Amino acid sequence: MAITMHDLAGADPALRFSPYCWRARMALAHKGLAVETVPWRFTEKDAIAFSGQGRVPVIRDGEHVVPDSWSIAEYLEEAYPNRPSLFGGTTGRAHARFVNAWADGVMMGGIARLIVRDLLDVVAPRDQAYFRESREARFGMTLEQVQAGRETRVAEFRASLLPVRLVLGRQPWLGGEAPSYADHIVFGSLQWPRCASRFELLEASDPVAEWRERMLDLFDGLGRTAKRA
Amino acid sequence: MAITMHDLAGADPALRFSPYCWRARMALAHKGLAVETVPWRFTEKDAIAFSGQGRVPVIRDGEHVVPDSWSIAEYLEEAYPNRPSLFGGTTGRAHARFVNAWADGVMMGGIARLIVRDLLDVVAPRDQAYFRESREARFGMTLEQVQAGRETRVAEFRASLLPVRLVLGRQPWLGGEAPSYADHIVFGSLQWPRCASRFELLEASDPVAEWRERMLDLFDGLGRTAKRA
Repeated sequence: MAITMHDLAGADPALRFSPYCWRARMALAHKGLAVETVPWRFTEKDAIAFSGQGRVPVIRDGEHVVPDSWSIAEYLEEAYPNRPSLFGGTTGRAHARFVNAWADGVMMGGIARLIVRDLLDVVAPRDQAYFRESREARFGMTLEQVQAGRETRVAEFRASLLPVRLVLGRQPWLGGEAPSYADHIVFGSLQWPRCASRFELLEASDPVAEWRERMLDLFDGLGRTAKRA
Repeated sequence: MAITMHDLAGADPALRFSPYCWRARMALAHKGLAVETVPWRFTEKDAIAFSGQGRVPVIRDGEHVVPDSWSIAEYLEEAYPNRPSLFGGTTGRAHARFVNAWADGVMMGGIARLIVRDLLDVVAPRDQAYFRESREARFGMTLEQVQAGRETRVAEFRASLLPVRLVLGRQPWLGGEAPSYADHIVFGSLQWPRCASRFELLEASDPVAEWRERMLDLFDGLGRTAKRA
């Protein structure tokens, strides 16, 4: 039986833009595992109550139910040790946590401040009130205020990607000679604005953009063929 | 014959505060290798001309001369594969490059802006003019101007350590269950202000400070027993 994954969807059920779901999708593809995604909306907490929490991604693999993108990657690595490795060992996994922490603590907030108002236009109508209220509470201002001035502020975001840029100056992938889960973390985060917004975060000449092109090609163009807003 | 390492020293030859030299010292200790350090000052380019470049650390191990802290760690890992691993494999090493890039691209600049004027007080008298000129050219202002307002700006620096803090909330070391070169990178960077300045960068209640205490104890207190300004 194929693995199923609850995946955040927009008003258009084909539009899948959650950065965490993208990390999990890439991890599944990296392992060569088929997955059947189940479109899910923010307000459908009941649909994933079986996972004991209220956020996606959630995967179900036979008996196993695993929420949280990082936990999913760890689960897949342990459950499918003979498939291509996501972490390259326990120290590789420990070090990938730093990339995950950096993406969550620095990159995600940076992206949100550039596209959060655009997200309102792609979420399902029934999610809109929830989305606006929960995000405005988090930022302490309206979505419009958060996003204002992004044309100039995007430079800051690009500067914040310096660690990625420095690494890519020394090796082709964050994982070294081949992509690892570290690549999927950063790429998954960038699929969020790429799929949900028309605002371009990267300059074409940026080595990060060149690497993203290569990431988009992986797994038969899984990222590239994704529906965009 | 013991490995020798040219190590940045202050006016007091016992004062060793280079963050990159600290990364290399910790890597050598991690491998259980004895090292004889050679005090070196910024203006003594001739003394390390044998390395083909002008910065420390430089190690000499028999026939092998290796400059640059990252290259030294890679060299030690390859030359001493049977000693405790710094990287835990090639993917672990690839992921550690991200920590190195983050430390170099984010952390080092953040620390410099808090203590660069203090450094002038500890460098050798013959290095002072060079130090002031080269650093003021880099910052485009006087050392005093760079350092001004640090009592309030230190909060920004502390916030920038969020990725480290998040990782330490999940595992005891950046390397996972045991320290790795990722720990030595961040710790070495923090030895710079700890040894060269009396300005405290970390709050005692910060998990990063608690981890630093454990790092200071490693290798018979190598970091803790270091001379401080």
